[in-house]
Amino acid sequence: MTVYLDHAATAPMHPRAVAAMVEQLTRTGNPSSLHGAGRTARRVVEESRESLGAALGARPSEVVLTAGGTEADNLALKGLAWARHAQDPRRRRLLVSAVEHHAVLDPAVWLAEHEGFEVVLLPVDRDGRLEVDALAEELAAHGDQAALISVMWANNEIGTVQPLDEVVALAGRHGVPVHADAVQAVGQLEVDFTASGLDAMTVSGHKVGGPVGVGALVARRGLDLTPVLHGGGQERAVRSGTVDVASARAFAVAVEEAVTHRAENAERLAGLRDSLVAGVRRGVPEAVLRGPEPGAAGAPSPGRLPANAHFTFPGCEGDSLLYLLDSHGIECSTGSACQAGVPQPSHVLVATGVDDHDARGALRFSLGSTSTAQEVDALVSVLPEVVERARAAGLAGVG
Amino acid sequence: MTVYLDHAATAPMHPRAVAAMVEQLTRTGNPSSLHGAGRTARRVVEESRESLGAALGARPSEVVLTAGGTEADNLALKGLAWARHAQDPRRRRLLVSAVEHHAVLDPAVWLAEHEGFEVVLLPVDRDGRLEVDALAEELAAHGDQAALISVMWANNEIGTVQPLDEVVALAGRHGVPVHADAVQAVGQLEVDFTASGLDAMTVSGHKVGGPVGVGALVARRGLDLTPVLHGGGQERAVRSGTVDVASARAFAVAVEEAVTHRAENAERLAGLRDSLVAGVRRGVPEAVLRGPEPGAAGAPSPGRLPANAHFTFPGCEGDSLLYLLDSHGIECSTGSACQAGVPQPSHVLVATGVDDHDARGALRFSLGSTSTAQEVDALVSVLPEVVERARAAGLAGVG
Repeated sequence: MTVYLDHAATAPMHPRAVAAMVEQLTRTGNPSSLHGAGRTARRVVEESRESLGAALGARPSEVVLTAGGTEADNLALKGLAWARHAQDPRRRRLLVSAVEHHAVLDPAVWLAEHEGFEVVLLPVDRDGRLEVDALAEELAAHGDQAALISVMWANNEIGTVQPLDEVVALAGRHGVPVHADAVQAVGQLEVDFTASGLDAMTVSGHKVGGPVGVGALVARRGLDLTPVLHGGGQERAVRSGTVDVASARAFAVAVEEAVTHRAENAERLAGLRDSLVAGVRRGVPEAVLRGPEPGAAGAPSPGRLPANAHFTFPGCEGDSLLYLLDSHGIECSTGSACQAGVPQPSHVLVATGVDDHDARGALRFSLGSTSTAQEVDALVSVLPEVVERARAAGLAGVG
Repeated sequence: MTVYLDHAATAPMHPRAVAAMVEQLTRTGNPSSLHGAGRTARRVVEESRESLGAALGARPSEVVLTAGGTEADNLALKGLAWARHAQDPRRRRLLVSAVEHHAVLDPAVWLAEHEGFEVVLLPVDRDGRLEVDALAEELAAHGDQAALISVMWANNEIGTVQPLDEVVALAGRHGVPVHADAVQAVGQLEVDFTASGLDAMTVSGHKVGGPVGVGALVARRGLDLTPVLHGGGQERAVRSGTVDVASARAFAVAVEEAVTHRAENAERLAGLRDSLVAGVRRGVPEAVLRGPEPGAAGAPSPGRLPANAHFTFPGCEGDSLLYLLDSHGIECSTGSACQAGVPQPSHVLVATGVDDHDARGALRFSLGSTSTAQEVDALVSVLPEVVERARAAGLAGVG
């Protein structure tokens, strides 16, 4: 039996999404073509956009389809930075939380190194929660120089849910647009774009049961965005490239499923997560849960993603733990899959004050649609032995 | 019966590519993950990369997967322009042929308007073939200021094959990298990246029987490219974003099929195209074939894509022709699907010296794997009546 505890890296496709995709793969038609086949393809795309809008609390016209979360984050960061700077050249400061995904951080750093912008890393507390006061101070001092704010809805490594309401309220007073990477939030938390007050929001297909290679930037009407991909002028000329009908359809079906069943899934997964956390603490008492304490199960506004658990194991290398667990058929991650194999401590853990040494012993367990109590038990039963072996290997390596 | 004569806009997926994609859709694993599922996914991606390299005459490591041709063109233009300019700030001139796809032209124009570059549009002759002398003069006068040259392998509207050998030889003398958009060439012409001497080449999935939403920039080893999408550092850190295993696999299968059967398909399609051209000329003698005369069927080095036919019909609106043909179940295009519905004459036709008025009567017929002699007959039999009605509608519009 393989125990897949890495849903935050990529999740199994929902059978309905697979079926929708397969149906479209055998149909031919470029949605930009004017003939019958093209119009049929266009209709599927627009219906998918309507479903996505309805599920995410956005107007259909606010959904800009992209090739995934990374592209949507790049479009948000670069598109907003360039457009806002063109309106007012003083706007050079990019306010991003220190725990953003690399798909947000790296565009910001590139804009700073290459295009004359400046990155302002907003600090977080021990749980990875944004220090809202620091944002308030930054805006009070330099609000007229702010090009954008980007704070993720929930963190992909340690599961921290960010205080977006406060961010949006503060930003509004200074007229600064706010982008949130909601890739991990959709399907786990209630995500309503219009109600959130955000200006732009990133979503991704393959984290919610849709295909890889599709996502969207939800961008409020009238938001000025400079394109990152130029060409045929598809997607309101904000994102060029032939629109991928099959992926759009499957993405829409997956998001619809994820949102429709969100409350019951979140409750189920939070319960499993709580057993997982309790089991790990019982078997490995020195393990340190990173990110906010889950709190009472089923709490109405939890500070943590229901499907996420993240620990550091003192004296262990995360990679050793990962490979040992893998040899037992248990699949998890040391942090972001996108940074797997990179021999550096997680910037997320470092931002929360974890020292480099402790940060190296990190493991993330992320649950999803296929997760069961048996899988959690399988992890919990094997973990103490695995931790002991990893610690012995670490000591041997030092000695 | 629907007659699909718009394969250049998008082509039906090859059944083997559909099967490969469907097989992967039900497997879960992020190729960046270190566990078993991740390693399996990574293996599928690397095997796909090997197939693509073998089919395209490139090393596997030279194949950078993207979300399609538009993204690959953007990466080539922006990535080369930024990297070359960083090496030497004099390099500000972007040498692009006047008949490039918008996915090349629009990034170049954006670089000029936004990033301080300068677009040098290289002229073409009446057939759409690059004026090599003009390129030679440009390089002689300003070679040290050239950031890049981008000349497509074959034109998507009028099918003209470009003299890339001459372009590469000239560019080599001045040390200027050459990119070619080979989206329409793969599967119709022999495309060997290494033998071509190109520095970078764009290919796309959905024009050759693969899925929409995947493509590649083939970039020679050591070519310095600034990323367009920053993030997790996938694809040699040139293109971030979770790699789409299913699309990569289906893309590789489609390209393999297209390249393996290229010679026989090209011969068959050239034969059909010749009947189509002859039939159109017989039924509508005033129709003007645009692009090079096909020449003897099966000629070894044709100047035109075998599957492409393009005409202007004097006194007609292309859109009227398109809709009238569509009402007969015949699907074609007025030019590039990416520009469909845009009420401007094709920049390709204008560059070949066609006046705006004549350019409005354009129709492109593009053949592919599913095309048959019966389909060509269906078009040829209905076209004279359609042209007559479109002309009458045009006169009524004027009157």
